[in-house]
Order: sequence, then C-alpha cells, then structure tokens
Amino acid sequence: MLILGLDPSLSCTGWGLVRSEGSRITHIANGQIATDAKAPMAVRLAALQAGIAAVIAAHRPDRAAAEEVFVNANPQSTLKLAQARGAVLAACGAADLSVNEHAARAVKKAVVGTGAAEKTQVQAMLKVLLPGAAIAGADAADALAVAIADAHLGAHREGR
Amino acid sequence: MLILGLDPSLSCTGWGLVRSEGSRITHIANGQIATDAKAPMAVRLAALQAGIAAVIAAHRPDRAAAEEVFVNANPQSTLKLAQARGAVLAACGAADLSVNEHAARAVKKAVVGTGAAEKTQVQAMLKVLLPGAAIAGADAADALAVAIADAHLGAHREGR
Repeated sequence: MLILGLDPSLSCTGWGLVRSEGSRITHIANGQIATDAKAPMAVRLAALQAGIAAVIAAHRPDRAAAEEVFVNANPQSTLKLAQARGAVLAACGAADLSVNEHAARAVKKAVVGTGAAEKTQVQAMLKVLLPGAAIAGADAADALAVAIADAHLGAHREGR
Repeated sequence: MLILGLDPSLSCTGWGLVRSEGSRITHIANGQIATDAKAPMAVRLAALQAGIAAVIAAHRPDRAAAEEVFVNANPQSTLKLAQARGAVLAACGAADLSVNEHAARAVKKAVVGTGAAEKTQVQAMLKVLLPGAAIAGADAADALAVAIADAHLGAHREGR
C-alpha cells in the first residue's frame, strides 16, 4: 500500500510517500512545492494542483491522507489555507485518489505516542521511523507524518 | 473582451460569460456545476475544477472575475467555500486566465446602482441588462452579475 501524505499550504505544500506492508513502513519519496508570493492567487493554486498531480502521476499512490483542516485565528490565513487545500484535493480527486482525513492530535499520537507532542518531537521520530530518508523541509516532514499516521490508523476516514 | 464571472461553491458553482464591447455588454452563456453531496470532498472539488476547465477550454475567455471571499459566521461553511474556490481558481490559473476580485458591494453597485441592493434586485436587473438570456439558476445569476461588474469596473484587480 503506497500512501501519499499531504500538508497543503499556499506558500509551500509538503508531500510524502511511504509504503506500508503489514507493520513495516518504508520511505519512498518526499518533497515540497513552493509558490511565488508575488504571483496571482490563481497561478499559485494552479502550481500546487499541477505539482501534486505530477507526484500522483509519477508514483501512483493507493490512497492519500491529510490533516483535518483547522480554523486559524486569522480568517485570511484560514481562507488561503483552505483554497490551497481545495486545489490539492482536486488533484487527488481528478486521479480517483481517496483522501483520508486525520485530526492533528491523532497524527501526533500515531507518530510519537502522544497527541500533545511538539513539532520537534514529530521530526525526531520521523528520523527513527524512516531511517536514512532525506527530508525536503518542515512541510514535507508534516506530510510524511500524516502518511505514517494513515498507515497506522488505516481505517477509512475519507473527507467529506 | 470576453469575461467569465464565477460564483464558486462546493454544492453548486455558477459561471457566466459576457462580451464587453465599449459600453455594450452581451450575454454569451451561463451555467451551474452541481456536485454530489454524498461524494468525497476530493471528488467534488475535482468535478468543479474539471467543469470550469471545460468552460474555459470551450469559450476561451480573456479574463475571469469573482467576488472577494467573505468569512462566513460558520467556520465549516467558510472552509468548504474556500476549498471550492481554490479548485475553481486553480482551473483559471492552469489556463493562464487572470481572475479579478470585486467586493460584493461593488458588484451590486455596478449592476443595480447601489451596494445595498437585494439579491432579487440584482436578478431583476440582469433581465434588463441581458435581455433574452436564459439563466440556469441563482448561482449562474450571481456569476453573470460579477462578470457585468467586472466589465464596468474594468480596472485590474487581480486576486493575490
């Protein structure tokens, strides 16, 4: 089972692919798609969509996963995040890829063992769980964490 | 100048095409893309994206326009709306179509003459401005209103 973890954001969307075989999880690839802050919104969204579509076309994952979206205190930030998420999820839907959603706490619990884990604890645990994997950055790390959590949680939690 | 007005929403995205020549505005086409409420989010977003991409491919508009997104009192509604908008704008960006954004009040003012106009006044005015046009529904009407406003406002107000 090849799982694509996604961490959508307008400025930089992270993605991470892991293979799950029984209880064994192996790193396949990860990356980040950064967009030009000076470009029009539509162009940035199209870049995210095309970038994730290319990852899907290249690796043909069996399913995808993302954290449940949270409502930021800043409505403008929430809107930007949700628009980026819309473009990224549309790329998944166009490839008939189902997207499981997991709460942020569930992802941390699955990776570190506690839902209250700090970001640095998650990143340290990734090095243990995916030994030798070169990780493109913090957004790719978040995406890999979602993919690992999805491998553990397994159950069908498709976003609606 | 062929202008594509957009009224993105997850359940039903409206679109409307008008041609603007000097002060003359003529109706070209309009429609609505409805999605299956029981389908997964990613599938619904992909349907919106593909639907708008098809309209753009068929009509080759010169520019697009949408209302500035507003933050709904219900955060879940805002998130759904913004995700739908992300998928729709990504379709525009992929076609190198710039998207102007106009405040809801500016659209009403351009169409009816007052920013405080009711929805019914906007719809009545559309019948006057676009005589004979069969309008697919309320979402298509909103999209046509944005397209007309964009023709009037003209100035470059690309969303960022």
